[in-house]
Parts: sequence; structure tokens; C-alpha cells
Amino acid sequence: MRTLGIDPGTATTGFGVVDEIDKKLCLVDYGCIKTSPGLDMPTRLNIISEQLTALIEKYKPENVAVEQLFFASNAKTAIKVGEARGVILLTASQAGLKVAEYTPLQVKMALTGYGKADKKQVQYMVKNLLKCKETPKPDDAADAIAIAVCHLNSRRIREAK
Amino acid sequence: MRTLGIDPGTATTGFGVVDEIDKKLCLVDYGCIKTSPGLDMPTRLNIISEQLTALIEKYKPENVAVEQLFFASNAKTAIKVGEARGVILLTASQAGLKVAEYTPLQVKMALTGYGKADKKQVQYMVKNLLKCKETPKPDDAADAIAIAVCHLNSRRIREAK
Repeated sequence: MRTLGIDPGTATTGFGVVDEIDKKLCLVDYGCIKTSPGLDMPTRLNIISEQLTALIEKYKPENVAVEQLFFASNAKTAIKVGEARGVILLTASQAGLKVAEYTPLQVKMALTGYGKADKKQVQYMVKNLLKCKETPKPDDAADAIAIAVCHLNSRRIREAK
Repeated sequence: MRTLGIDPGTATTGFGVVDEIDKKLCLVDYGCIKTSPGLDMPTRLNIISEQLTALIEKYKPENVAVEQLFFASNAKTAIKVGEARGVILLTASQAGLKVAEYTPLQVKMALTGYGKADKKQVQYMVKNLLKCKETPKPDDAADAIAIAVCHLNSRRIREAK
């Protein structure tokens, strides 16, 4: 089972490709799709869609997991994050992939067992669960990996009866 | 010059196709793209993208005008509107069309000359400028027509020197 985790943003969209093989998690690749603030929004959204399509073609994930947000510092920021999210949900759907959505609380619970865990605790668990030598950088990529791990772990929990 | 005006929303996306021929405005078509709240978000965004692509192929507009929002009642609503906006900007861009964005203030100024005009005043001007027998319904479609008219009028103002 291969999952592509995505942390959406117009300037930086983090991604993480995680495999689950024999109940073990394995980090395949991670990084960021970046777009310049100097470009207009339709062009930036096009870049995000094209690079996400390229990632899907390269890694052939079985599903996509995206962070679900309900808050933002202001409406302008919320609309911008929404624009990137919309493009990601559409692109994954056009590629025929199912998209799972998880709230930040669900991601924290799945990785640390603690809903109030901070960013560092989540990143520490990402590093340990995936046996990385160092914490994956930047934060957007680490967050995307955490979302993929959340999806794989919650699937395992659902199936354990 | 043919413009496709769009008022984005996940449940209802209004559209209006307006021609400018010999400095006269002419309403070609208007209506709404609707998606059911019972469907998941990727499916709803796919419907918006497919129906917008069909409208672009049918009416072959020279450009697209979309409302630019900076406020919303809450972050959840803002993110949802952003998702629909992102899909619209991407779809128009993928069709090779330029997208112009206007704030509600700009739309009100362009149609009524008054930034604090209410919805009814804007709709009254839409009806009169386009010589409609009745105000186009529903509101989302009337708003989309207003955005198209705003684009055509502001272009004319830019070109008048």
C-alpha cells in the first residue's frame, strides 16, 4: 500500500510518499512543490497541478491523503489555502485516485496518541516511525509525510478487529 | 469581445456569458453549475471543472472574469469557496484563457458608480445594461453577469484615453 501525503499551500505544497510493506512503514520520497509569488494565481495553480500529476505518474500511489483545515489566521489566507487544496483534490480525482482527508487533530492522534502534541513531537515520531537519520525538511514535507503515515495507520486500525 | 463571468461556490457556481459588440453589451447565456452536498468534495470539484470546460468549449469566450474575495463568515466557508475558486482558475488557465479578478467593490463601482451599492442596485443595473425583461435569476447567475460586465466596462475605461 503506497500513500501520497500532501500538505497544501500556494507557495509551498509539501509531499511525502510512504509505503506500508509487511506492516512496516517505508519512506520512498518527500519534498516540496514551490511556486513563485511573482506569478499570477492561475499560473501557480497550474504548476501545482502539473507537478502533482508528475508525482502521481512517477510513484503510482494507491491513494492520496490531504490535510483538512477549518481555521486560518484570516479569510484571505484561508481562501488561498483553499485554492491550492481545490486544485490538489481535483488533480488527484482526475487521476482516478481516492482522496482521504484528515484534520490536524487526527494527524497528531495517529502519530503521537496525543491531540495536543506540538510540531516537534509529530516530527520526532515521523523520524522514528520511518527510521530516518534526521528529521525530514522542510516542515511542509514533514507535515505531508505525517499525513501519509496517519492514513496508513488509521487504515490499519480500522482493519484490526 | 466575449467574456465569461463566474461567481465561484462549491454548491452553486454562477456563470454569465456577455458579448460587447459595437460598444453595446449583449447577454448570451447565464445559469448555474450545481453540485450536491451529498457528494464528496473531489467529485464536486470534478463536476465544476467538467461543466466549466463544457461552457468554455460551447461559448468560446476570449477571457474569464472571476470575483476575488478577501472575507468570509468563517474560515471553513473561506476554504470551501477557495477550493471552488482554485478549480475555476486552474480550468480556465488549462483552456488557455486569461483570468481577470475583481473585488466586490470593483464590481459595484463598475456597474453603479457607487462602492456601497447593495445587491438589488447591482441587479437593477445588470437588468438595464443588458436590456433584460426581468432580473436574471438566481442571484449567483446575476452576480456572475455583473462580474463579466465589470470586466468589459473596465477594459473600455482603460482603453479610453
